[in-house]
Amino acid sequence: MASTFGHLFRITTWGESHGGGVGVVVDGCPPRLKLSAADIQPDLDRRRPGQSKIVTPRKESDTVHIVSGISENGLTLGTPISMWVRNEDQRSEAYNEMKDKFRPSHADFTYFAKYGIRAWQGGGRASARETVGRVAAGAIAKKILREKFGVEVLAYVKQVQKIIGAVNPETVKLKEVESNIVRCPDAQAAAKMIRLIEKMRAEGNTVGGIIEGVAHGVPAGWGEPVFDKLEADLAKAMLSLPACKGFESGDGFGGILLTGREHNDLIRAKAGKVFTTTNRSGGIQGGISNGETVSFRTAFKPVATVMHEQDTVDESFHNTTLKGRGRHDPCVLPRAVPMVEAMTALVLVDHALRQRAQCG
Amino acid sequence: MASTFGHLFRITTWGESHGGGVGVVVDGCPPRLKLSAADIQPDLDRRRPGQSKIVTPRKESDTVHIVSGISENGLTLGTPISMWVRNEDQRSEAYNEMKDKFRPSHADFTYFAKYGIRAWQGGGRASARETVGRVAAGAIAKKILREKFGVEVLAYVKQVQKIIGAVNPETVKLKEVESNIVRCPDAQAAAKMIRLIEKMRAEGNTVGGIIEGVAHGVPAGWGEPVFDKLEADLAKAMLSLPACKGFESGDGFGGILLTGREHNDLIRAKAGKVFTTTNRSGGIQGGISNGETVSFRTAFKPVATVMHEQDTVDESFHNTTLKGRGRHDPCVLPRAVPMVEAMTALVLVDHALRQRAQCG
Amino acid sequence: MASTFGHLFRITTWGESHGGGVGVVVDGCPPRLKLSAADIQPDLDRRRPGQSKIVTPRKESDTVHIVSGISENGLTLGTPISMWVRNEDQRSEAYNEMKDKFRPSHADFTYFAKYGIRAWQGGGRASARETVGRVAAGAIAKKILREKFGVEVLAYVKQVQKIIGAVNPETVKLKEVESNIVRCPDAQAAAKMIRLIEKMRAEGNTVGGIIEGVAHGVPAGWGEPVFDKLEADLAKAMLSLPACKGFESGDGFGGILLTGREHNDLIRAKAGKVFTTTNRSGGIQGGISNGETVSFRTAFKPVATVMHEQDTVDESFHNTTLKGRGRHDPCVLPRAVPMVEAMTALVLVDHALRQRAQCG
Amino acid sequence: MASTFGHLFRITTWGESHGGGVGVVVDGCPPRLKLSAADIQPDLDRRRPGQSKIVTPRKESDTVHIVSGISENGLTLGTPISMWVRNEDQRSEAYNEMKDKFRPSHADFTYFAKYGIRAWQGGGRASARETVGRVAAGAIAKKILREKFGVEVLAYVKQVQKIIGAVNPETVKLKEVESNIVRCPDAQAAAKMIRLIEKMRAEGNTVGGIIEGVAHGVPAGWGEPVFDKLEADLAKAMLSLPACKGFESGDGFGGILLTGREHNDLIRAKAGKVFTTTNRSGGIQGGISNGETVSFRTAFKPVATVMHEQDTVDESFHNTTLKGRGRHDPCVLPRAVPMVEAMTALVLVDHALRQRAQCG
Repeated sequence: MASTFGHLFRITTWGESHGGGVGVVVDGCPPRLKLSAADIQPDLDRRRPGQSKIVTPRKESDTVHIVSGISENGLTLGTPISMWVRNEDQRSEAYNEMKDKFRPSHADFTYFAKYGIRAWQGGGRASARETVGRVAAGAIAKKILREKFGVEVLAYVKQVQKIIGAVNPETVKLKEVESNIVRCPDAQAAAKMIRLIEKMRAEGNTVGGIIEGVAHGVPAGWGEPVFDKLEADLAKAMLSLPACKGFESGDGFGGILLTGREHNDLIRAKAGKVFTTTNRSGGIQGGISNGETVSFRTAFKPVATVMHEQDTVDESFHNTTLKGRGRHDPCVLPRAVPMVEAMTALVLVDHALRQRAQCG
Repeated sequence: MASTFGHLFRITTWGESHGGGVGVVVDGCPPRLKLSAADIQPDLDRRRPGQSKIVTPRKESDTVHIVSGISENGLTLGTPISMWVRNEDQRSEAYNEMKDKFRPSHADFTYFAKYGIRAWQGGGRASARETVGRVAAGAIAKKILREKFGVEVLAYVKQVQKIIGAVNPETVKLKEVESNIVRCPDAQAAAKMIRLIEKMRAEGNTVGGIIEGVAHGVPAGWGEPVFDKLEADLAKAMLSLPACKGFESGDGFGGILLTGREHNDLIRAKAGKVFTTTNRSGGIQGGISNGETVSFRTAFKPVATVMHEQDTVDESFHNTTLKGRGRHDPCVLPRAVPMVEAMTALVLVDHALRQRAQCG
Repeated sequence: MASTFGHLFRITTWGESHGGGVGVVVDGCPPRLKLSAADIQPDLDRRRPGQSKIVTPRKESDTVHIVSGISENGLTLGTPISMWVRNEDQRSEAYNEMKDKFRPSHADFTYFAKYGIRAWQGGGRASARETVGRVAAGAIAKKILREKFGVEVLAYVKQVQKIIGAVNPETVKLKEVESNIVRCPDAQAAAKMIRLIEKMRAEGNTVGGIIEGVAHGVPAGWGEPVFDKLEADLAKAMLSLPACKGFESGDGFGGILLTGREHNDLIRAKAGKVFTTTNRSGGIQGGISNGETVSFRTAFKPVATVMHEQDTVDESFHNTTLKGRGRHDPCVLPRAVPMVEAMTALVLVDHALRQRAQCG
Repeated sequence: MASTFGHLFRITTWGESHGGGVGVVVDGCPPRLKLSAADIQPDLDRRRPGQSKIVTPRKESDTVHIVSGISENGLTLGTPISMWVRNEDQRSEAYNEMKDKFRPSHADFTYFAKYGIRAWQGGGRASARETVGRVAAGAIAKKILREKFGVEVLAYVKQVQKIIGAVNPETVKLKEVESNIVRCPDAQAAAKMIRLIEKMRAEGNTVGGIIEGVAHGVPAGWGEPVFDKLEADLAKAMLSLPACKGFESGDGFGGILLTGREHNDLIRAKAGKVFTTTNRSGGIQGGISNGETVSFRTAFKPVATVMHEQDTVDESFHNTTLKGRGRHDPCVLPRAVPMVEAMTALVLVDHALRQRAQCG
């Protein structure tokens, strides 16, 4: 069940980094939505390797094929939409040494411990390549949210190691995010981030950082008590992404330095519309959206593959060392931005449908 | 579906802060486990109001009644275990003013926006009282983990506002946690925390903080790629708790300040046993446990109910003010510790059973 | 997970025939529905032991207590509705001999084989007493279907052993069903059925039969391809009832004697409304309702408890014999009618909400 | 969610009769199972059009491609297995008339009523072509059951219209089933069935019948009270198949003619092994297997496509007529045999894993 996500808008991803490809089945999509590859490819291109000098140079066109679920005149049928992306640039030889050595802080050892077997080429299912299916499905979710519910989902790089961008989550636009290759809307910070990532690559080292996600236009009332709170489902969605190690909603960890009097978002009404004068809650109270901008932050650890010899063990549990080879990202954040957007949109569209189901 | 949690060890909670009581149905519990109220009451007592001078003085005995699922000789039957706790000390009058005003940063407005109706007395389903069922179910999960899998789950207060305790997650023991009323194993920090909380209560104000959760003895191999990663399920579990606004696994947000070379947990083997020389991953890699101590941190915001007049609106969406009344916690953390343990145990036992199902 | 049923309108039942009681948690109920015990008790009374001379004389008032989920002015809150019925008339001594003997064609042996333990008094969880929770939840589902969707769910006894009632599924009314104690709307057949059941009781023997279920007013479009077809979910719902061993939708097994030309339901339209000239499909085509009356039949086997010595084995797997004792139904059908209605309503309301979610 | 089936061994099917193909994702498969296309193709060949003179002559090679989830040395990785079969022989022109007419007793109208759109070529998702994915997944399930649990799943044609085969469910073998093209192990009955089907085809008419399913070697203890009874899950599985309109477990509808004394399966033990002297329960009591042969019967209605003019309406809801064209099965039963086996195996393997999870 672990490769399926969502209750009403439900996706099932499949595929390894090496093998026939990766894909996703989207079930529960509302019918009669205009949909073609052109709606999906742009987000895949934002996730694609080789898109800029600061990501892995691995060459994958990542062209999406929609294999089912669309009528001859380009409308969703309401039945499962199957999408498939071929694996193209596989160089197993780069992974030969990993055949019987576990890469530190990768999932090699844990998959082996769990299953007694692992796809050693490229990380198998733990590879970020698995997220192709999520991003493709997320593009559909974003389209539904935009067209049917007036909701715009967006993510951007907020921080790379110690470099922090100044971004206003209430007003940030896609155009600003896409204005540079690191996807940080603060141009000055972006320039520094890019330099840092290039330096890291040159040193065979890696860095992590923070991606902020926002959703503009979410109406009050999405999210379900008590276990499927909006922020609970967002947290799960984010922590299910490769390399993600932290999630905070609204003020999150920072909020604990304030007292209750300081932290509360006071409520006002104007012309019959309720709003809060601050948004420390990140648009969610009691697990349900309150009509303000939904915002959260996620921590992505530095990429585990470094081009330096590191201590590890082999499959016979003997001590050895391993040095990263192959073509890797010195920082996952630029490519993780569309992944964060996709997972956000998948959570939101599912809750939009759930709200419509129960409350009409 | 939102009041049900878990796939194989599955709980369903019910009940509001005011009304006949609160409870839980536990489905999928392994049969022939010795179980009685004595296994469950201690954790309910740790969660109970009125347990110390720094929590709400509301008087609830929170006595658990096991109504089904146990044989006459005290063994689990494998069928649903229904548990029920009566509501005793309800003073609706304390909530009269809230009948048509929304408390800021509470779920009053969002429930109203979602359902068009709300249980205004005491927060209804959004009340921390709902967690009675989780803690009761969690006590069973903890017992199974301890007796059948050798896993010990523990949580403790790590930080209250700016006061940080020094605690070693690898070695911390329940006895240390329970050695003071704030549940911080660092006695000096605990004393400061207690003073701060008392000061806050005197000022009609509140504070938040951080609870750290650990699980000792988790074998390598628990957690499922790709959506039901162990840390994804833990994140959801935590963010589903009232007032929780953040989750980080292992180093989490702090880890992004390191480079990959610094952050990686190197692997060694000794006498056929694999281990890592550091544990920045918090015992989880690729979403699967690696045999090290599972550890994570959660942020709980300051309690929203403050004894001061604050701006808000009424149910007719007119501007007004509201001042907190009644008996409330100046800080939820001491009582949230058993909630964090419960949710951790529920996630782990579910994954233990899932691992047994798929991999034997 | 096996004690939970439904996706959006979701129920979880708990409780054994002996012990503190039986109950149900209903999650996902639409908010602001007027609801009180008076809506639920009538169906429980139709299910109740001791209601007539042809059912078990066991005395249970089966009074429902709604413990959560209702506002002070009697409206559903949208949160879980917990309902509870006390066990009253328990005479464990009647079951003493069963303590270590398995009743033939009961679930005694299979529960023991599965769990290594069983609640020997009264069949434990396999007892028809478990259906109290279903019937209570079903009463809510029926009310929603009636008030919000104009759908009327009804069941009746169609056949007892060889005695077949003549009933028109298109026009049958509750009043006719309730006009006699066996719940067969054909008065003449009903009289014969009652005589047969009384004879069976006198002989310490039992009989089974067929219950027909219908739903009037189901709009076209409910049911989901491909696994959650309306008739697939109805089949599961029925076969999950104690003693139910068969299900057929529309013509079912009888339909196979016809050719395609004879069997097809021809389609006509009149004043913009589509209908079929026959209804051999039972209102369902391709798993989706077509706007005609939904109708199906279910087979209930003769009650396994007979007052005669029968071959069996004990818990040590030695051959022995066992004679039924205690107060039992000579025929479950009269009491199973509200169970069939409840399960039908639960399936339909779930699909009503699912249809609203996906297709608006 | 409706295209996903199973809890632990979970399949998701996708694809229409016309379009890029059909496929399935199998999630939760135990790791390290030897698996290749050679394990799957034989069952697809049994399901394939064009396999004999009594099925549709449509030409599809139905060659399976395993795209993920298998290691380079041919073992399952424990991760999703994606399988894909291309659509080859599509002749949309045969369906031109159906573009705006609904075929009687097909799902054309109900899909249109549900989704407001439909894939009119070949029935879209309601086509039996969707079962390709089920049969492929079922082949894996059958292999696991055989190799890991000693369970053999089998189905065969028991009845075509009024022609009934004499088959002993306890001893029937695959070889006998496959000894003729109608898949009825009774050679004499089979010959009559084949003649009848040929006659029907010649007349442009169709027939239905009964398929019996059996599972040999199921240990006592599979199936879960109360909603996921083994026969409830089997019933749902069968009724989810195209054209299936009935299910009965063991004696089913026939059993109601017996009294309890006659119907009960008496229990005996021999050398520590418990068995029943009859098997009217079909190997299931209280929803849990009892160690006897699991057996059930399913009714498949006559194929709705007949080569005769029949009354229907068009998409504008005007009365019209329609005559079947194209290449169709005069009787689905021979090809439905592997579908019944697949669904049976999927239910059983899921319960095998669930039993291992809860009871060890």
